[in-house]
Amino acid sequence: MTSANFVVEARDASSSARVGRLELPHGPVTTPVFMPVGTGGTVRGVFHRTLAELGFALILGNTYHLYLRPGHDRIRRLGGLHAFSGWDGNILTDSGGFQVFSLAPFRTVSDDGVRFRSHIDGSYHELTPELVVEIQAALGSDIQMPLDVCLGYGVDRAEASEAVDRTTAWASRAAQAWRATGEWYEGALFGIVQGNFYPDLRRRSAEELLELDLPGYALGGLSVGEPAEVFREYLDLSAELLPGDRPRYVMGIGTPDYILHAIEQGIDMFDCVMPTRMARNGTVFTRGGRIALKNSRFADDPAPIDGDFTHPSVSMYSRAYVRHLFKSGEMLGPMIATVHNLSFLADLVSEARDAIANATFGAFKRRFLQRYLEGNERERIRSSEARTGQPVDAEVGMGERG
Amino acid sequence: MTSANFVVEARDASSSARVGRLELPHGPVTTPVFMPVGTGGTVRGVFHRTLAELGFALILGNTYHLYLRPGHDRIRRLGGLHAFSGWDGNILTDSGGFQVFSLAPFRTVSDDGVRFRSHIDGSYHELTPELVVEIQAALGSDIQMPLDVCLGYGVDRAEASEAVDRTTAWASRAAQAWRATGEWYEGALFGIVQGNFYPDLRRRSAEELLELDLPGYALGGLSVGEPAEVFREYLDLSAELLPGDRPRYVMGIGTPDYILHAIEQGIDMFDCVMPTRMARNGTVFTRGGRIALKNSRFADDPAPIDGDFTHPSVSMYSRAYVRHLFKSGEMLGPMIATVHNLSFLADLVSEARDAIANATFGAFKRRFLQRYLEGNERERIRSSEARTGQPVDAEVGMGERG
Repeated sequence: MTSANFVVEARDASSSARVGRLELPHGPVTTPVFMPVGTGGTVRGVFHRTLAELGFALILGNTYHLYLRPGHDRIRRLGGLHAFSGWDGNILTDSGGFQVFSLAPFRTVSDDGVRFRSHIDGSYHELTPELVVEIQAALGSDIQMPLDVCLGYGVDRAEASEAVDRTTAWASRAAQAWRATGEWYEGALFGIVQGNFYPDLRRRSAEELLELDLPGYALGGLSVGEPAEVFREYLDLSAELLPGDRPRYVMGIGTPDYILHAIEQGIDMFDCVMPTRMARNGTVFTRGGRIALKNSRFADDPAPIDGDFTHPSVSMYSRAYVRHLFKSGEMLGPMIATVHNLSFLADLVSEARDAIANATFGAFKRRFLQRYLEGNERERIRSSEARTGQPVDAEVGMGERG
Repeated sequence: MTSANFVVEARDASSSARVGRLELPHGPVTTPVFMPVGTGGTVRGVFHRTLAELGFALILGNTYHLYLRPGHDRIRRLGGLHAFSGWDGNILTDSGGFQVFSLAPFRTVSDDGVRFRSHIDGSYHELTPELVVEIQAALGSDIQMPLDVCLGYGVDRAEASEAVDRTTAWASRAAQAWRATGEWYEGALFGIVQGNFYPDLRRRSAEELLELDLPGYALGGLSVGEPAEVFREYLDLSAELLPGDRPRYVMGIGTPDYILHAIEQGIDMFDCVMPTRMARNGTVFTRGGRIALKNSRFADDPAPIDGDFTHPSVSMYSRAYVRHLFKSGEMLGPMIATVHNLSFLADLVSEARDAIANATFGAFKRRFLQRYLEGNERERIRSSEARTGQPVDAEVGMGERG
């Protein structure tokens, strides 16, 4: 895969937002695109057919999870992740770097790679940049990510710098391994820019990775616990470092405000477990802000989850009914909420693409977020009052996150 | 509703099997019909849309569960169970009798009704025949069942006889309350024949209930732990007691052999939680017998769950993938298996209807069960050998249940 597989088709008038078309082995993907996360080869609680109906042409899988269970050798024997899972759209697999650093106990990092214990059965494993490429090639990932060192917010400069060194060295080894895969493997390899919250480290990471001339670039290590304004600052300065002729991907963001901010900065791809995870807990996006459907005030609410904006496949379900399902521990509750949240994000990104094509993205973003964030703020006040029994004032000069 | 709402459209040549059409407030239902069980207002893990696609025009709800949560007053306020749940097909609600006797602790039965503690929160409740009619009218059930006394296998004659007395008395009070519901309520009330495993008590129960001239009749208290041959004996003798111009319903059966036997005896309707419950545990019906998909021998099996007989909406999922989902505790596993099992039973009953219309039901039943039960027997041997490490002989002269 080369940069020729990505074409920018439209640009916003007053921001870096753009509409693009990404050609992948399992069909074209229109960007900006939100990618649902299917960690273990399944977007939890969603039939493949439903994903396709919602317009998702690219979903995520995770190398760490699939390597541990059911194992990439098994998946290779069964014809790759597409044949194994029955999903015939595109699949991007994350390298497992983030998961090793966030999930696996007893991990030790060396120049060679990372050694860790499985969070499932405690067995020891070692991932190297080369093995991670091999695993993802065995999976048949349409886009694969190289092993990287991902750190949290608040790490000191020395540690962040060393992580950049390793991330670059590993990406270089990954690129070599990826270029050595046979003709049979058509997937792309993206680079992952790290550098934590140090502007010069971000710049160095990007510059070093660009030398590898990969078909796409991602920003890693953002949305890892930093305040919203820090996220925005680092997204903005990092996005500028990425080449305009390649797809740009921010890993791990999934709220409307983060997504719209990223699109404005010229980001093309994003993913996050949060929208589907919060759905399974009963919290859904609406145009008027997030709501927790378990809340007792929905017990008699006959309205659909988000008025006209609920997807037809779940529009027959009232808030009262979905609340009943959650209170009764019924599977259908998470299933409905998950489809709803994915449909919400698919619509959001689709409308953003239309707004970019009409060169009116800024107005769209303002209008959308005003209603959405005011709703979040109302909800914050409501739940705070319910908790304390005291009235709460609305925030004056409220920012983009309530 | 009167008996005019049920028309027999075709009869088998050499058995009592028949095809009928039952007109209900939410549309016609072709019989024989398997009814999926949606205890708390949801068939676990299945979207309403999928149920409709599978051809189900009549599902079950449960009075006991819906009365306790979310409460029939709430459902009434929200326009009834159809409006509340968003399901616009027909709903039959069981009376709660069976649930009170099988689930609720501290129950006491008197002539007036049954007092019990909620299995959810321990609160005390009392159900009377009249209240049970009122609850089901509030739910808007298309078919409602009267409160009955349901006993298990092995109960002595005195207790079984007393249960028949109460069941008759309660059905009579239920019929009076049902006839007194206003014009606004269009649902039917069926009678439930009890009598445990005493032929004369079964006969007395049926005769007493027939005097109430209800629009349909059910056989209760079967498939409660008795051996298969006892089930068949009592089904056969009880089925003959029911009028041929009304729908006949056997409560609580859901395996292919029991269903086909019931159809042969002229039964029109049946329901059971087992097909969906076993699906959630990873066991599925196939034409070649039941299989437990968690079994390690499916780990590399690329075949769909049941070859050509898997429903198109789940046909892209291999046994290997579904096993992976179950081993990983993923929701999609139970979702796929549930759709498959419901689709299997919908197909079975649909093919049975065709065979009846062609007057070839007997041959269809033999052919279907031969392959199915041989498969069950193979599976029994396989799992026994896996457990003991010893070879097992196939049963000679195997009956209809392996």
